[in-house]
Amino acid sequence: MTTVTDLIDLFEAEAARDRPTEEMPDVGIIMGSDSDLDVMAGSESGRPGAFDALTALGFEECTDYDDPPESRYTFETWVVSAHRTPELMYTYAETAADRGLDVIIAGAGGKSADLPNMTASIAYPLPVIGVPVQEKSVDSVIGMPHGAPLTAVDAGKSYNAALSAVQILARGDDELADRLRSLHDERQTDVATVSWSLHDLGTNAFSDSR
Amino acid sequence: MTTVTDLIDLFEAEAARDRPTEEMPDVGIIMGSDSDLDVMAGSESGRPGAFDALTALGFEECTDYDDPPESRYTFETWVVSAHRTPELMYTYAETAADRGLDVIIAGAGGKSADLPNMTASIAYPLPVIGVPVQEKSVDSVIGMPHGAPLTAVDAGKSYNAALSAVQILARGDDELADRLRSLHDERQTDVATVSWSLHDLGTNAFSDSR
Amino acid sequence: MTTVTDLIDLFEAEAARDRPTEEMPDVGIIMGSDSDLDVMAGSESGRPGAFDALTALGFEECTDYDDPPESRYTFETWVVSAHRTPELMYTYAETAADRGLDVIIAGAGGKSADLPNMTASIAYPLPVIGVPVQEKSVDSVIGMPHGAPLTAVDAGKSYNAALSAVQILARGDDELADRLRSLHDERQTDVATVSWSLHDLGTNAFSDSR
Amino acid sequence: MTTVTDLIDLFEAEAARDRPTEEMPDVGIIMGSDSDLDVMAGSESGRPGAFDALTALGFEECTDYDDPPESRYTFETWVVSAHRTPELMYTYAETAADRGLDVIIAGAGGKSADLPNMTASIAYPLPVIGVPVQEKSVDSVIGMPHGAPLTAVDAGKSYNAALSAVQILARGDDELADRLRSLHDERQTDVATVSWSLHDLGTNAFSDSR
Amino acid sequence: MTTVTDLIDLFEAEAARDRPTEEMPDVGIIMGSDSDLDVMAGSESGRPGAFDALTALGFEECTDYDDPPESRYTFETWVVSAHRTPELMYTYAETAADRGLDVIIAGAGGKSADLPNMTASIAYPLPVIGVPVQEKSVDSVIGMPHGAPLTAVDAGKSYNAALSAVQILARGDDELADRLRSLHDERQTDVATVSWSLHDLGTNAFSDSR
Amino acid sequence: MTTVTDLIDLFEAEAARDRPTEEMPDVGIIMGSDSDLDVMAGSESGRPGAFDALTALGFEECTDYDDPPESRYTFETWVVSAHRTPELMYTYAETAADRGLDVIIAGAGGKSADLPNMTASIAYPLPVIGVPVQEKSVDSVIGMPHGAPLTAVDAGKSYNAALSAVQILARGDDELADRLRSLHDERQTDVATVSWSLHDLGTNAFSDSR
Amino acid sequence: MTTVTDLIDLFEAEAARDRPTEEMPDVGIIMGSDSDLDVMAGSESGRPGAFDALTALGFEECTDYDDPPESRYTFETWVVSAHRTPELMYTYAETAADRGLDVIIAGAGGKSADLPNMTASIAYPLPVIGVPVQEKSVDSVIGMPHGAPLTAVDAGKSYNAALSAVQILARGDDELADRLRSLHDERQTDVATVSWSLHDLGTNAFSDSR
Amino acid sequence: MTTVTDLIDLFEAEAARDRPTEEMPDVGIIMGSDSDLDVMAGSESGRPGAFDALTALGFEECTDYDDPPESRYTFETWVVSAHRTPELMYTYAETAADRGLDVIIAGAGGKSADLPNMTASIAYPLPVIGVPVQEKSVDSVIGMPHGAPLTAVDAGKSYNAALSAVQILARGDDELADRLRSLHDERQTDVATVSWSLHDLGTNAFSDSR
Repeated sequence: MTTVTDLIDLFEAEAARDRPTEEMPDVGIIMGSDSDLDVMAGSESGRPGAFDALTALGFEECTDYDDPPESRYTFETWVVSAHRTPELMYTYAETAADRGLDVIIAGAGGKSADLPNMTASIAYPLPVIGVPVQEKSVDSVIGMPHGAPLTAVDAGKSYNAALSAVQILARGDDELADRLRSLHDERQTDVATVSWSLHDLGTNAFSDSR
Repeated sequence: MTTVTDLIDLFEAEAARDRPTEEMPDVGIIMGSDSDLDVMAGSESGRPGAFDALTALGFEECTDYDDPPESRYTFETWVVSAHRTPELMYTYAETAADRGLDVIIAGAGGKSADLPNMTASIAYPLPVIGVPVQEKSVDSVIGMPHGAPLTAVDAGKSYNAALSAVQILARGDDELADRLRSLHDERQTDVATVSWSLHDLGTNAFSDSR
Repeated sequence: MTTVTDLIDLFEAEAARDRPTEEMPDVGIIMGSDSDLDVMAGSESGRPGAFDALTALGFEECTDYDDPPESRYTFETWVVSAHRTPELMYTYAETAADRGLDVIIAGAGGKSADLPNMTASIAYPLPVIGVPVQEKSVDSVIGMPHGAPLTAVDAGKSYNAALSAVQILARGDDELADRLRSLHDERQTDVATVSWSLHDLGTNAFSDSR
Repeated sequence: MTTVTDLIDLFEAEAARDRPTEEMPDVGIIMGSDSDLDVMAGSESGRPGAFDALTALGFEECTDYDDPPESRYTFETWVVSAHRTPELMYTYAETAADRGLDVIIAGAGGKSADLPNMTASIAYPLPVIGVPVQEKSVDSVIGMPHGAPLTAVDAGKSYNAALSAVQILARGDDELADRLRSLHDERQTDVATVSWSLHDLGTNAFSDSR
Repeated sequence: MTTVTDLIDLFEAEAARDRPTEEMPDVGIIMGSDSDLDVMAGSESGRPGAFDALTALGFEECTDYDDPPESRYTFETWVVSAHRTPELMYTYAETAADRGLDVIIAGAGGKSADLPNMTASIAYPLPVIGVPVQEKSVDSVIGMPHGAPLTAVDAGKSYNAALSAVQILARGDDELADRLRSLHDERQTDVATVSWSLHDLGTNAFSDSR
Repeated sequence: MTTVTDLIDLFEAEAARDRPTEEMPDVGIIMGSDSDLDVMAGSESGRPGAFDALTALGFEECTDYDDPPESRYTFETWVVSAHRTPELMYTYAETAADRGLDVIIAGAGGKSADLPNMTASIAYPLPVIGVPVQEKSVDSVIGMPHGAPLTAVDAGKSYNAALSAVQILARGDDELADRLRSLHDERQTDVATVSWSLHDLGTNAFSDSR
Repeated sequence: MTTVTDLIDLFEAEAARDRPTEEMPDVGIIMGSDSDLDVMAGSESGRPGAFDALTALGFEECTDYDDPPESRYTFETWVVSAHRTPELMYTYAETAADRGLDVIIAGAGGKSADLPNMTASIAYPLPVIGVPVQEKSVDSVIGMPHGAPLTAVDAGKSYNAALSAVQILARGDDELADRLRSLHDERQTDVATVSWSLHDLGTNAFSDSR
Repeated sequence: MTTVTDLIDLFEAEAARDRPTEEMPDVGIIMGSDSDLDVMAGSESGRPGAFDALTALGFEECTDYDDPPESRYTFETWVVSAHRTPELMYTYAETAADRGLDVIIAGAGGKSADLPNMTASIAYPLPVIGVPVQEKSVDSVIGMPHGAPLTAVDAGKSYNAALSAVQILARGDDELADRLRSLHDERQTDVATVSWSLHDLGTNAFSDSR
């Protein structure tokens, strides 16, 4: 059993600690509930998520602050609820920069999907990318008022949010930019291959071959 | 077989009777059809409802006016249809205060979800919390005109409606307020526990553990 | 010029102070921007708002904590922005109960209308009534997740929100209940009078008389 | 000044009275507020309404039950609010058949446009045609549950509702059927005339001629 | 195999014939496709439809013009597609009155649900009740322009459309009015019986009993 | 004064006549009401319409069948209402091919915008391009069922509908194809010129220059 | 494995080649992903698509540019993604006319369904018919700005898009026009046959017979 | 007069040139039409835009590549239409990185707001922030498919898009981060000042003072 206070203490301790940048996670993934995990991190049976994009780009998940992964690029994953654990959310966002994060990917479902928005407001000027976990969450995530920046992806597109996060990190980092390009080249070849196959086999034979 | 007249007579007799306050239900739960029961009261297989919230807070259901439960806090449950049994609805609402109710939780489905609205209009100034049973019922429930108060929760959130009803009763009642806080503390610890587990195991191991 | 810190200090000082209940406001009205004032408080040219309902029911506005109004029932009004001043919002909500408030009416516009929701989450178990300032704010205000209660009125209906707030206060307070009934009786007579006039004059003459 | 009780007494007295059918109005027009009058009855500056359709078909408005118009076909007009004057609405609908009405045209605005629905439920089996006064009222008016009949026209189309009401009365009444046909013939000739004019003048000259 | 021309010839022949009124169907049920039959006529596994309402009220289906049912009240059922068989639709509507129909219940699905609308335009002044077969058909069915009357029920509510059709026929027909009242009394007793059962057993026992 | 019968006779006479193709209009523009003219033909104060596109491409309007314009490419314009003049619509569509039309541009407003759909069904296999005159007409225009072809443009875009109509005529007609390309080149140069101007002047100076 | 460059080279080579018109496909079918194939080409278990309409009208699929089908009318099918392979899309559209295509049917899903729109912009003045693969793709497909023509069918209606494409080709081609009429006659007889069957058997027997 | 070719040549020349990074603009602002300028750049009478945010943060506009502003941070502004000038859009995006841009802010209106999406697809992996110029543009801008990253702000919020762009540039640039914080501090003090003023004056006096 872990209490909200335990986690708040942890975040504050990490923020106060003076770890070298390379030992701290670059990207933070948070979501309002563990039921959002299939959307936010991807699942074997469903569509890929932020976890899949980041690992495909060579990022490793940091699960222990005192024993970070060896990879040059890392991320962390937490459940933080704006409406059920507001104090935890406040502390997570307030300590984010001091804990080494460069960008946060925040997902929330429902019609009052406030987690990305509040996180962006509190962590400012750290960039936050909002992921509406459901279609009905899009309006709430995207609708920030004048002067309170947040950018958003479409409902359920945490995979794209991770690509966008890495686009931010890739500025001035040729290796990351190259990884982004390689991943894209593979995707393009996949499209071309299936396109040729459909054309060459014809609709009927292609359908049967699937 | 029970007729609408039987129930109307019962409500009027109860209203005329001079029962002590503590023997009368505090909260009334009504719904337009028994097909709304899974939403309004919760179900084992689905999400919890008003029944679950109230019983978690120590309320007991009053099923016999002449033999009320021992609990200090009680509620009652009825099916009342605005469009199929308008006279029954009228009498239920008109007698509500005299039957000891302090707040009514009224749920209705469909696009003409008038039960909460008409109940609020007739039972005024007794507070009524409307529960749209379906997403398409939200507009109809929330859209009361100027001067006709009703507050609403989101579609299907009868659990939250019950919490809101108890927030009303908890004004000046420290015991109820404490019960509300305890219930919330448990919920927060649940969030923190799953959050730590996700972080500590990492996305893959956590997913596998579910 | 007033800073966010000034207001945070004020709220914390008030919360720490040990004022008698009757000197503290009963109802708090907050809104995300002063551009919401016409909706939240009403305006001479537009439809009446929470301010009009409360004053019609004998409430007075508390503008100086050290010199509260003489009225038995009072309210206060503030601008608090969830996304532009998250720390101010947090402190306002966290200190609300200790500052004597019994119910908060919170209004916000836009599609990410998070002020009512976050205030309800932080001030819990104090009841919060959300007012979507625009039609497009309804979804965001009403959509609270399971376990995080908030009730809402329709877009722009801060007048009704104030009536609902007073319905909460009127529980066990016969004077307030009577005031609510009187206000309603006037409204009903207005409807009956115009109805008779339309019928009696006929459509054409009635139209000309307007 | 007229009270709700005055009108309730009037409707009940009329229902108890034994007037000959031809002295009682055939069609009842009700609306939730006199602000609906422009939509429900039509206005000089706006589009025509039920009043215009009925008078074009030879109906006269009955403004005094004791001194009905000489016309063979008559109607009456009242303001009745479901949410502000529920008892008045109940009595209006309950006495409608005994007061001689054959069909009711009921209009209401807002998102909880319950007047047509409740009137139909109470006056059943008298037919009620619902008129959503605003676009946002359509869902609430049309969405009656299984077993509770009401038919509706589009938002603001009280003119068409009146035609539909007369279509009901015209069953087995050749004179009314002929009047409906004549009115339609005029409309068709209007369309043909403007069509020819546009074709014959050409787009430019026709536009200039308007 | 039947051609469109066969049916057109049949309708025209029937219209030309001089059958006694009591041998011709009173109500016509038409739908755009036989895939609409479950909605328009009801199905054993789904919700009841117009067929069920009419037969519950003692109507019999006329399947052979030369050998009509014995019942005093009858109806007929056809598939007519506005967009696939426009000429058939035109003839059906144009001959409807001469074929003895008093009211038409027309259902169509899709977003261009034109069948009810065109039928109403052509069969005018015969009343037509439109049934949107799908939710997305509502706008198209209800949106008739000024001067072209049609009334509509909610998506899929052909059962209610049939009740409304009989309400039209019941004007001046006490037997039909009594049948409508009896059917409603049964429905009200059903509601009251389940309501009492829920209250008396309590939520848990009632749920288990279902 | 022109009657519907006059126009029906005219269309039938034209269809029966044996005019040479080059004397008959190529494109027919129809609309449900002359209030649609600003959208369907364009207006001086508003956005350009089909009339403007066609004349920019060298088409002339045919206003007298017996005295057609000299231009190689011509069009005609009529008001035809599906719901108010169904027989006129039927005849217009049924005779379209015999009257020489190659493509019809049909616009209608409201939520039951059936004119384009019915025209397409009746005039089939002549291609019909539907123009929803209002945003709320889009669904009704585009939603044709399986097997009943119609293509549509966006709300109010009759200008684009005319370009699409000419794209159809331009197949195998190099002169028309060239005219389409020239018109487009002008548009592209307009965009480039304003783009350069904005860049070169800078935002402030450019804004002031407008 | 095929790369985007392979396909681009192929399209450019084809465009440069000087094949006789009758050896080049008339209609191009493209879609954003092979997951769109069931909608764009139809499937055995689902509704028919463009492939089915074209083959029913005697078109054959061209799967090898160097060995075209013998049929007088042919089409080709490719996967082209606007957002994943923009250069491929650009080349496909830019070379379309030179590769002999007369009309393109382009389908795309999602809310940013840009493929039909960009293809129409680049291939102009070649006509493009857009097919929104999902309901949520309709707005994006239909919403072309002033001066950029594209016509669209309803969501998923690629079958109708193919009929519309052939309507374009049928201008001045009596054989194709006859094929379109024959296909329609069959459809009409299907409707008439099922209509008669429903009427003749009656609702119950017809339902049982299905 | 400037042609599309002129601009394409310019962009390609700039991309080929070897300018030092500090002489090239950091941020590119593009929009589909100069009618989007009030939204994309802000206007005196309307709400502030990207231009206002960037200049408030010390950015200067580059209007002449050969004579760049002295400021360390600069931006450029162009009109580029996806549907009217696809080749210009293609070249702008393809040359963006080589012309020194670090992030692009792309705005488009209408329902097919493809400019941000296509620009992001072509300029990848350069980050693009999409601005829906109208509410109806949101879906089209945000709805990118899996694997094609773009982040978006709410309709009309180009000011926020500029803040988000600078958040990207501020990574590892303390001066920019400080400017972002200062701008935010001013905004917070504005909120606090108006909040105190409303509270201290009271609703009536505050309203009068505005």
